[in-house]
Amino acid sequence: MSDIRVIGSYISPYVRKVLVFLETKGIAYEIDPIAPFAGNEAFARLSPLKRVPVLLDGGLVLNDSSVICQYLEDKFPEPSLYPRDIAQRARARWIEEFADTRLADGLIWRLFYERSIKKRTTGREADEAVVRQAREVDIPAALDYLETQMVADGFMFGEASIADISIACYFRTAQFVRYEIDAARWPRTAALLDRTWALPAFRKLARFEDCSLRVPLAEQRGALRAAGASLTDVTLGTGPLRPVAVRTT
Amino acid sequence: MSDIRVIGSYISPYVRKVLVFLETKGIAYEIDPIAPFAGNEAFARLSPLKRVPVLLDGGLVLNDSSVICQYLEDKFPEPSLYPRDIAQRARARWIEEFADTRLADGLIWRLFYERSIKKRTTGREADEAVVRQAREVDIPAALDYLETQMVADGFMFGEASIADISIACYFRTAQFVRYEIDAARWPRTAALLDRTWALPAFRKLARFEDCSLRVPLAEQRGALRAAGASLTDVTLGTGPLRPVAVRTT
Repeated sequence: MSDIRVIGSYISPYVRKVLVFLETKGIAYEIDPIAPFAGNEAFARLSPLKRVPVLLDGGLVLNDSSVICQYLEDKFPEPSLYPRDIAQRARARWIEEFADTRLADGLIWRLFYERSIKKRTTGREADEAVVRQAREVDIPAALDYLETQMVADGFMFGEASIADISIACYFRTAQFVRYEIDAARWPRTAALLDRTWALPAFRKLARFEDCSLRVPLAEQRGALRAAGASLTDVTLGTGPLRPVAVRTT
Repeated sequence: MSDIRVIGSYISPYVRKVLVFLETKGIAYEIDPIAPFAGNEAFARLSPLKRVPVLLDGGLVLNDSSVICQYLEDKFPEPSLYPRDIAQRARARWIEEFADTRLADGLIWRLFYERSIKKRTTGREADEAVVRQAREVDIPAALDYLETQMVADGFMFGEASIADISIACYFRTAQFVRYEIDAARWPRTAALLDRTWALPAFRKLARFEDCSLRVPLAEQRGALRAAGASLTDVTLGTGPLRPVAVRTT
């Protein structure tokens, strides 16, 4: 039995990485699904950079999705989500880093931010020049590189790993603003996304993502509970959530 | 015997992390000390994000200092530079991430860039408002947090680890533009820096840092060789180095 709690929205790709790890490893957890780009004093104390996800394991507080995933692998080694071979493991971690930074720049911080978060948090409309730069330059450049790293079949390093999961997490959030990868131009990456999204963990989380996207904020906790999520209120019990400059990691 | 080569300048804190690992673990390596923010086609092929350091180990090409350090730990486990305890290991990785991002923002991308790199690469003078923001707001905020994470004596997690090394690497580069931590205000962090810089690896690398800082570019390779560095020319043999938007990691 574990005592693990996660703070962060189902919409965040960084939170999703951690949740996919927990689901795949069969670790029980509770989630405090605070709205994206919201926080309060309790949250700031738990997250020095005011970012999600935060993982609480008993008295241990961890930040940063890469650090958290590696911790979960160390503590719950089976099934392993890092390649066994040392060189392949390093390559998988690099693909994760590439996804967390370069892929996230285009898909999340430009496209998803402009098309979704900006309106929610500032009321302003999307800057179409930024959207165009993301769709026509940044995302294709990242995909051109990723396509050279792909294998013809299966996952990048044999079994599904942190590499495939990371890539699929960012493209999943981009789907919320109707981004679809061009399978004719990047066929191997497109096929990898389909294979990864078909994993049980991604399919289960999709239910909660739908709640988070479609249900008004005030009713989300009820809807998530009804859909089977185990919720907690690490932050909500301690004061109102206000907009903060949260940048997820 | 290893066949390890590193691309990157001794001035870069991200490169230094990797070199401290190699030195501490007693791994033989050669270095291609290209100037900061310079690259060519060969470099771009080896570094998709055009960042240093790059580590070559036989046919394996690795990017990102965090990925490279973890690879070196996996391949050459002794002496270990990550805490043995799983929770402490995760905390150490988080401190590394905090240093790589928040500490680097103030010390490197604002202070060091404005006071050193900007003049070298663009010929323009420092923006004193940016320098002031770094010195009076960003760096103190990061130090206030770090100070709460420090122990009274020794290193953060018993033996010296990735956490102490990462922190010390950024403050070392900041010293090149005469930044000194206020030991009255952040006594534990100041003491940790002194202890970490006294490690043999940091002391050895300081010789090569001096060459890189004080000797004109055209004479640096000769000076570094005379000082005992093992050089290679992964990139230099393949075409002229030109300024590129290299951001180290």
